[in-house]
Amino acid sequence: MTVTAETLTLPDHPFIPEMVRQTRAFDSYGVNDGLTPAELLQPYVVTKEQRREIPVIGDPDEELIARLKAYYSAMAMRVEADCGKMASPMFSITHEGFGRVIISVGKLLVVDRSLRDVHRFGFESLEKMCSDADKIINSALALVEAHPDAAAA
Amino acid sequence: MTVTAETLTLPDHPFIPEMVRQTRAFDSYGVNDGLTPAELLQPYVVTKEQRREIPVIGDPDEELIARLKAYYSAMAMRVEADCGKMASPMFSITHEGFGRVIISVGKLLVVDRSLRDVHRFGFESLEKMCSDADKIINSALALVEAHPDAAAA
Repeated sequence: MTVTAETLTLPDHPFIPEMVRQTRAFDSYGVNDGLTPAELLQPYVVTKEQRREIPVIGDPDEELIARLKAYYSAMAMRVEADCGKMASPMFSITHEGFGRVIISVGKLLVVDRSLRDVHRFGFESLEKMCSDADKIINSALALVEAHPDAAAA
Repeated sequence: MTVTAETLTLPDHPFIPEMVRQTRAFDSYGVNDGLTPAELLQPYVVTKEQRREIPVIGDPDEELIARLKAYYSAMAMRVEADCGKMASPMFSITHEGFGRVIISVGKLLVVDRSLRDVHRFGFESLEKMCSDADKIINSALALVEAHPDAAAA
């Protein structure tokens, strides 16, 4: 079953408006300016059935990379909003869809993840996207609390 | 004046053999396998005169990016050898030659630099390359000492 923008309900969660902002920010040419929030976020939902049909050969496309960057950038913004210190995301993604993403606060790496299967980036539902992000955000904030000197450096 | 491999003397400095190793490591197809260390390192020397002649339009070429990566990876290896903890470099470079490079040790960012004018990457001499690298390496090691808990995390 494919989720369409019409059947998509946006969870009432602070991550959602940040995802809308970041998704628009990465849309450099404004091609999606006319889309509603639900239409903008719909491509983040990739069901198990859809995932199985995605080939992992060939280069991941630009829009998919933009969505991945928007997702981690939205987390950086939430970390920043919560701890009051600047949080910067950085991406290194190969043409084959492998890579690494970090989020730094001061001299502290608060997020450090290997990326695999970038081609299949997506979530079962927007609720799952928010709860996954919350886990990463909370772990990042715990690191800032555990290492305040490095985070302030 | 262009520096040639024939007129190039390799400084007696621990950074030099590491640069040779890393430059070979980034030569994925082995096209430079037959080169001597002086021939391998000669492209890192870019005199003021040469620098002025390099246009900063167009994409920086692959070999230049490989040299830049080898340079920071060699620093990561020196940091690792000195502090005994794994040091990982990560690069994010746009087609226009701007970017960011980091080196992480545990959860600590020991190097974090903006890259500009990647097109003109190079050093007045190999001695200058080693002394620049020493400054960055020493500052990285000082950070590991100042934040041992984050570096061990």
